[in-house]
Amino acid sequence: MTVNLPLPLKADLKPVKGFEMGIAEAGIKKVNRKDLLVMTLVPGSQVAGVFTLNRFCAAPVQVCREHLTQAESKSEIRALVVNTGNANAGTGEQGMKDALRTCEVLAKELGLQSEQILPFSTGVILEPLPIEKIIAALPKAVANLGGNHWLDAAEAIMTTDTQPKATSMTVQTPAGPVVITGICKGAGMIHPNMATMLGFIATDAGFAPGLLADLTREVADLSFNAITIDGDTSTNDSFIIMATSQSGVEIKSVTDASYVSLREALIAIARKLAQMIVRDGEGATKFMTIEVVGGKTTEECRLVAKAVAHSPLVKTAFFASDPNLGRILAAIGYAGITDLDVNRVQLWLGDVWVAKDGGRNPSYQEVDGQRVMKEAEITVKIDLGRGSASQTMWTCDLSHEYVSINADYRS
Amino acid sequence: MTVNLPLPLKADLKPVKGFEMGIAEAGIKKVNRKDLLVMTLVPGSQVAGVFTLNRFCAAPVQVCREHLTQAESKSEIRALVVNTGNANAGTGEQGMKDALRTCEVLAKELGLQSEQILPFSTGVILEPLPIEKIIAALPKAVANLGGNHWLDAAEAIMTTDTQPKATSMTVQTPAGPVVITGICKGAGMIHPNMATMLGFIATDAGFAPGLLADLTREVADLSFNAITIDGDTSTNDSFIIMATSQSGVEIKSVTDASYVSLREALIAIARKLAQMIVRDGEGATKFMTIEVVGGKTTEECRLVAKAVAHSPLVKTAFFASDPNLGRILAAIGYAGITDLDVNRVQLWLGDVWVAKDGGRNPSYQEVDGQRVMKEAEITVKIDLGRGSASQTMWTCDLSHEYVSINADYRS
Repeated sequence: MTVNLPLPLKADLKPVKGFEMGIAEAGIKKVNRKDLLVMTLVPGSQVAGVFTLNRFCAAPVQVCREHLTQAESKSEIRALVVNTGNANAGTGEQGMKDALRTCEVLAKELGLQSEQILPFSTGVILEPLPIEKIIAALPKAVANLGGNHWLDAAEAIMTTDTQPKATSMTVQTPAGPVVITGICKGAGMIHPNMATMLGFIATDAGFAPGLLADLTREVADLSFNAITIDGDTSTNDSFIIMATSQSGVEIKSVTDASYVSLREALIAIARKLAQMIVRDGEGATKFMTIEVVGGKTTEECRLVAKAVAHSPLVKTAFFASDPNLGRILAAIGYAGITDLDVNRVQLWLGDVWVAKDGGRNPSYQEVDGQRVMKEAEITVKIDLGRGSASQTMWTCDLSHEYVSINADYRS
Repeated sequence: MTVNLPLPLKADLKPVKGFEMGIAEAGIKKVNRKDLLVMTLVPGSQVAGVFTLNRFCAAPVQVCREHLTQAESKSEIRALVVNTGNANAGTGEQGMKDALRTCEVLAKELGLQSEQILPFSTGVILEPLPIEKIIAALPKAVANLGGNHWLDAAEAIMTTDTQPKATSMTVQTPAGPVVITGICKGAGMIHPNMATMLGFIATDAGFAPGLLADLTREVADLSFNAITIDGDTSTNDSFIIMATSQSGVEIKSVTDASYVSLREALIAIARKLAQMIVRDGEGATKFMTIEVVGGKTTEECRLVAKAVAHSPLVKTAFFASDPNLGRILAAIGYAGITDLDVNRVQLWLGDVWVAKDGGRNPSYQEVDGQRVMKEAEITVKIDLGRGSASQTMWTCDLSHEYVSINADYRS
């Protein structure tokens, strides 16, 4: 079950100059399945990333952080490697050794230094990484490197995803056209900061030092950090933006004319990718937009949006198309705004004004709520009536299939 | 589905001297169903309560708080009234009027003042309370007041509960025997601070002013605030201890010899009741005890226990009897201890040492994990390795039936 999830077409996914992908079947968990992806960048490229805040973060996440820190001063990132089927998390010292060994072997294969590689893993936690299988398959992935493999790359990073997720656009900046293409994976364990989510976006624009790192954080907050499926922040989440500088469009500062259009385009691409994850949410039958306005701060709006988006009772009511909307009020009430005056709270379901000044809107009729609840895409709008801050989150419903998928994941 | 949920026997539920219950069928939501409960206390009784922290708390909760505050100085609580089928929450001004009107009518019926009544409601949110039906049934409830109606009372407060929940004991204090009997309801929307949970405990002991209020908060934290089913803190949760002073055992201060045994007995009764709610958790097939030790503070242990107990991924894995234990580590990792050294974390599943020093225990075998996972009652023990504080929580698994129950609740 997916909710209006677009199937990417190979022809629509534009190559990014200076960026190549190679795919292999390493047989990590299943045979005859693309499960290894190598990505390479031309010299002079820049890479920035945002990673899970989980303290039990996976070994590859720790290695990524280290290598990115080194890249700020003495080296530059030139390649990335992703395996699915095993998260290399909760694997202790051996896990770190395995992540570093993957980098070493790939570096040798590509004529690079180990610290120029970023490693990523996704899959089962607490099981040793089958490092020999990965190493054996690396040369095959390198052998088929090419700029036109976006769809294969999107397939190679899938776990419980029902289909590959990718999107692409050309943005016309004042300094010339820039290509942006991205892929991502994830369908469960999805929550802000972040989830079993991998997202990779490549662009042929260039950025002055430091600029890309700030922009990546900002883009993540407005996209991948604004989705939730089940509230579980995973051990491996990573979101990466890579910039090859090959288009000739160079962003020197945030005041550049081209920066504005490029920033908007990156946010749009990242949001589209993030929403694809929700649309493919484990067992999803509904796509819900939770829009909170009228807050004192963005943070309190986020708290409310998260509480509503995360409530199993709200999510099962949406699954049932049941306008049991008191559950939304209950979630607003426990979101954590201790001085919330509920008598100022308004609630809309789509275009229907459901709760007025904290109580049932006298003109609200259940038949109207029912009509909206039957739609596949539903916007819940909450006005807190205490300020001008706002925050939007995206989520999906909680269905029987969610339980089935997660009860059977390993069997 | 319930997990070792004891069926209370009428003969086991001891009357508490000075305390009576009357039950009626008000036809609030369904016909031929006990849905109204009146409880009365002799003059000189004391009542203390702990209520939901939800900002959208129901009208009756607001009235309870007000009347309890007044009872501290100028009045005394002499009766309680509970209806099921409608929560009288998200009902605005009319909801407040309805809650107060219920008190007025019952007060007149019993020859009391309105502020001597505590009202409680549980059921659907955001729908107007059918106040006329309740008022019409109050005289019937009053007419059958008696001290031996515990089982009927437990039935009258049920919503999605599969069976009544009640327990009783006589505790021998140095000052003489004391009877404690309690009932509760709740099966979903269960989470600390608190849930669609109503708990009422009566005892014939007596307490010096102020003492019972502190004790009630303490008992709640060690029982009803230590359970979670789906993480939704409801609008109506209330936990009440009533003390009639009729046994002759009077507690003057916390240093009284009888205080210790009475405190222990009240905690035991409240825990038993709270655990019954988990054992009847919507769709529950497993009863899980999450024991966190080795923390720096009780609060951080509570954070970790809550994260594990609340994770849909952990809960579905338990439903599937799948020792996918990395999900527990992931939950520990995102619980919010920012300086957690994961290399000091130990994890046991029952008697099986699963994760050692943050990684998979080399001697752990999946077959051992599998064995424990198949049991109906499972203890997860987590040692954070950073202090001597501890905290235990109780929860259940997440099954297909949870989704069914909550998708169909109103239909």
